Amino acid sequence: MEYRPFPSWPDVAPRLIAVAAGREAANTVIRGGIWVNVHSRETLHDHDIAIAAGRIAFVGPDASHCVGPDTKIIEARGRYMLPGLCDAHMHIESGMLTPAEFARAVIPHGTTSMFTDPHEIANVLGLDGVRMMHDEALMQPVNIFTQMPSCAPSAPGLETTGYEITAEDVAEAMNWPGIIGLGEMMNFPGVIHGDPKMLAEIAATQRAGKTVGGHYASPDLGPDFAAYVAGGPADDHEGTCEADAIARVRQGMRSMMRLGSAWFDVESQITAVTEKGLDPRNFILCTDDCHSGTLVNDGHMNRVVRHAIACGCDPLVALQMATINTATHFGLEREIGSITPGRRADVILSSDLAELPIEMVIARGQVVAEEGAIRVDCPHLNWPEAARNTVHLGHALTGADFEIKAPVGANRVQANVIGVVENQAPTKALKSELPIIGGLVEGEGEVCQIALVERHRATGGVTNAFVSGFGYQGNVAIASTVAHDSHHMIVVGTDRDQMALAANRLAEVGGGITIFRDGEELALVELPIAGLMSDSPATEVAAKAEQMVAAMQACGCQLNNAYMQHSLLALVVIPELRISDLGLVDVRTFEKIDLLEPLA
Amino acid sequence: MEYRPFPSWPDVAPRLIAVAAGREAANTVIRGGIWVNVHSRETLHDHDIAIAAGRIAFVGPDASHCVGPDTKIIEARGRYMLPGLCDAHMHIESGMLTPAEFARAVIPHGTTSMFTDPHEIANVLGLDGVRMMHDEALMQPVNIFTQMPSCAPSAPGLETTGYEITAEDVAEAMNWPGIIGLGEMMNFPGVIHGDPKMLAEIAATQRAGKTVGGHYASPDLGPDFAAYVAGGPADDHEGTCEADAIARVRQGMRSMMRLGSAWFDVESQITAVTEKGLDPRNFILCTDDCHSGTLVNDGHMNRVVRHAIACGCDPLVALQMATINTATHFGLEREIGSITPGRRADVILSSDLAELPIEMVIARGQVVAEEGAIRVDCPHLNWPEAARNTVHLGHALTGADFEIKAPVGANRVQANVIGVVENQAPTKALKSELPIIGGLVEGEGEVCQIALVERHRATGGVTNAFVSGFGYQGNVAIASTVAHDSHHMIVVGTDRDQMALAANRLAEVGGGITIFRDGEELALVELPIAGLMSDSPATEVAAKAEQMVAAMQACGCQLNNAYMQHSLLALVVIPELRISDLGLVDVRTFEKIDLLEPLA
Repeated sequence: MEYRPFPSWPDVAPRLIAVAAGREAANTVIRGGIWVNVHSRETLHDHDIAIAAGRIAFVGPDASHCVGPDTKIIEARGRYMLPGLCDAHMHIESGMLTPAEFARAVIPHGTTSMFTDPHEIANVLGLDGVRMMHDEALMQPVNIFTQMPSCAPSAPGLETTGYEITAEDVAEAMNWPGIIGLGEMMNFPGVIHGDPKMLAEIAATQRAGKTVGGHYASPDLGPDFAAYVAGGPADDHEGTCEADAIARVRQGMRSMMRLGSAWFDVESQITAVTEKGLDPRNFILCTDDCHSGTLVNDGHMNRVVRHAIACGCDPLVALQMATINTATHFGLEREIGSITPGRRADVILSSDLAELPIEMVIARGQVVAEEGAIRVDCPHLNWPEAARNTVHLGHALTGADFEIKAPVGANRVQANVIGVVENQAPTKALKSELPIIGGLVEGEGEVCQIALVERHRATGGVTNAFVSGFGYQGNVAIASTVAHDSHHMIVVGTDRDQMALAANRLAEVGGGITIFRDGEELALVELPIAGLMSDSPATEVAAKAEQMVAAMQACGCQLNNAYMQHSLLALVVIPELRISDLGLVDVRTFEKIDLLEPLA
Repeated sequence: MEYRPFPSWPDVAPRLIAVAAGREAANTVIRGGIWVNVHSRETLHDHDIAIAAGRIAFVGPDASHCVGPDTKIIEARGRYMLPGLCDAHMHIESGMLTPAEFARAVIPHGTTSMFTDPHEIANVLGLDGVRMMHDEALMQPVNIFTQMPSCAPSAPGLETTGYEITAEDVAEAMNWPGIIGLGEMMNFPGVIHGDPKMLAEIAATQRAGKTVGGHYASPDLGPDFAAYVAGGPADDHEGTCEADAIARVRQGMRSMMRLGSAWFDVESQITAVTEKGLDPRNFILCTDDCHSGTLVNDGHMNRVVRHAIACGCDPLVALQMATINTATHFGLEREIGSITPGRRADVILSSDLAELPIEMVIARGQVVAEEGAIRVDCPHLNWPEAARNTVHLGHALTGADFEIKAPVGANRVQANVIGVVENQAPTKALKSELPIIGGLVEGEGEVCQIALVERHRATGGVTNAFVSGFGYQGNVAIASTVAHDSHHMIVVGTDRDQMALAANRLAEVGGGITIFRDGEELALVELPIAGLMSDSPATEVAAKAEQMVAAMQACGCQLNNAYMQHSLLALVVIPELRISDLGLVDVRTFEKIDLLEPLA
């Protein structure tokens, strides 16, 4: 273990008491600010905060009795002093960054607590991978709590993950110091039908007194939804409309409203509070998934709070949704989420409560960012070789690995083709008549090839199929080891040799995203940790990701968010048609189907 | 252990899911009521509730899919369906009833959850006594959670309790199934000054993830209050004015507002919500202390909620203060406090939300009361002999035990006299010049004798002193083994022989309250359990207590609440002058003082 546990309230209570009483001097006093009180929902002018041992010791109109010769004084100069922001549900891997680099990117935005579900690495490295994320999380100068992933594989029987998470894994992880609960229970049909494995995971979490994360991705609010609620998930971030939010809160869940890089579910749900007047205490803000570009250019939880306010939410209510509501939900209201005695001293200074400029960030009593610049070290785990070497192809691929043999004697065939839809996660299940050339079925027009390349067990397995909608032209290939949720490798291309080049290149660099045209690599995002994350700074990763997007466009793809589409094409839990290491999957029926059909 | 643990949510989740989905039939369905939703703060007409395994399985506009041939149907007929009420802090002993009889008295009033601090019995029987209360609590058909008493003795060095509670006791109790946290930390000066024993008790509770109850009985909201908050108490019920409530909530504590038999702290504090507009989530209602007469004649938590509404609080907000706010505070929001799936099925039917008539009470899915009548058994613990035999006098007392010898050669003396003040807990430290007759100091006029009779260790010790203000006339004596907080025996009388009769009588019956006049017993309230509680029904105890009050009046005492005054005269933590087994205590200075002084 490379982290030192942060001392608990009872560990340091004698010192906090002595400082509050004026018998000892505080380490730091923030002087003369507006106390944003998320308990009473008030702003209180001309207040001071005294900090000792990384925790709040005193808040009042005058902390001069806590000041000694060595006390560091921070002048708030009439600015707002608000609690550090909490992201209630998120996947660090979505930023393509390690926990350390993710923390470094979001701390200047005022995020001091994150509830992270390392679901992606669980698919690649199993419980060991979760532990690595958990351990690096605990090394950070801010609070990163880990939700134990619940669903690897996401779709048992339809895909093969690197590792599986079992109910025993969940029970074991509940004893780790940084585990706060169970990650989103995506297998909602399993819960509804009483799947013993899913219920065992939930039970292990509830018995540990921890919080079960929900994921009910269906518009049906009838008995199925009721059955899911009865199963135990305590929150849900999959709501997309006001009725979803209201239904969840009425049933005793907390409604997590997300604004990620590609999720826009706050505006459509927050009317439950702003217009329908529901008690706001059970509404919580989160990001779920943020790309590094969003973190670099737009912000993190400050962006979400700002957006909620822009949607008409009272600023204090919006701040509660990103501080105390979250803390209460996870049983941490006496640890984080407010500026009150005993809590970790996580404080933001900001001169405006609506625009929310993040001018200074203090975490655990330490100044961690000023004016957008990080002021603290975010230590890296010594990631083991097993985590840096996860692209196992079995053999170097050639164009032949991507050949799709035609039925003997046929001239043309009908193929089941994955149809990409711009800006939507669901795909279309299309059928296309395709030509046969030299005994091989070939893409044509909008239709090009897609391959799922097995990379966890070096089986050498390649599943070939067709995809439509990217618009690639010329001899190009795009490969990615970010390939939700089992994270093999997805290669899309118009040319089999380019596909082989791209796949081999990712094996060489340990994973990431690459684009080849005519034998030349146009862009490369290296993601050496589990093939999912970089331990380089967010600015570098964001810049490379931008080059990658530009290269995709240069290859003819004009789709918005094309890379997201690419990385989701193996997500065999979202309709209609997906690819997995086991074949083509019709997610409307959860059955494997043949790639080729006889012409009608 | 005589109780069967109530099955947990994960224990019965498969059944709840099956009922919600319509695959299995509910045990009970409540049909066609108004769902009082304390999460969203709404009333929702025409809703059904399905109950299975004692928990809520489904709530929605139509539960017909949960109904089978054996499902019991309860017709709500358009009445409100509200969560069972929670008393957030209370002492069962104040009702002079055992937990079973207390439960039997309050269930018809809609109380289904209580957070009880058996502080009184802890003074008499120590950890064993707490365990007995805890065990009988767990045998009840409603939820009685135990707060581990923190302060026995209340005033170390100034009194001798039957047993002491240690930090080790607290740590041990945190593992008991019914312990929910630490009872009110009354030793606030100890916390403020960093007393290691008090901090160890708080630390043991916090490390167990449980809630530390507070008790800050001072109007000072300066650094002392801040130091107390920094020590860890999570709530406080000693506030008496709006500023108290606001200060507590701003500092991250929950403000518990009490309406007991003799506490009236709701009206003066609830304006923090109704007028100042603070977020109501951190305000909670409780009773602290209720006499059996209040329970029989006026109600329990229904009385408090009704009163809060009468004080101008929105009915739904007032109900939140007695349901979900309490549940959240104790980390039980997914167990009790709302009518939502998974929670214990604790439901009240009422036809009016302001008057709050309690027409039916369901607890854990079982009809426990209808129209004010109990419909369920409240099992009694087999209280051991040690708990029934706690009045140990050492020897039968005679009038001589109550003689106060005068200084040799004096004719008159000046005595320090405890002055009773009507309707107030604090006393006055008076000085009276008293006559000497036959070498003994005698009471005169308003001044009569008071004695603290040791009863825990059979030392035969009697501390004699004088008290003024009761107005007793003739040859009378009143004795009580309810004698806060160390619960020896307090005897007040105008005649030493009557005092001896009364004291011996309580030794004979195992404790309680008795009144003697001219050798005749005018009234007797038998409290055989620890000398504090009766295991008879509340109606009987209330009737005997009424007779006792009438007898006190017949003896010349016209004070309001005279018995409360009597039982508090040994409470050596409230100014100004008290009596203990160690002598007369000046609570302004926390020092023992002499009874007699030379005349000036």
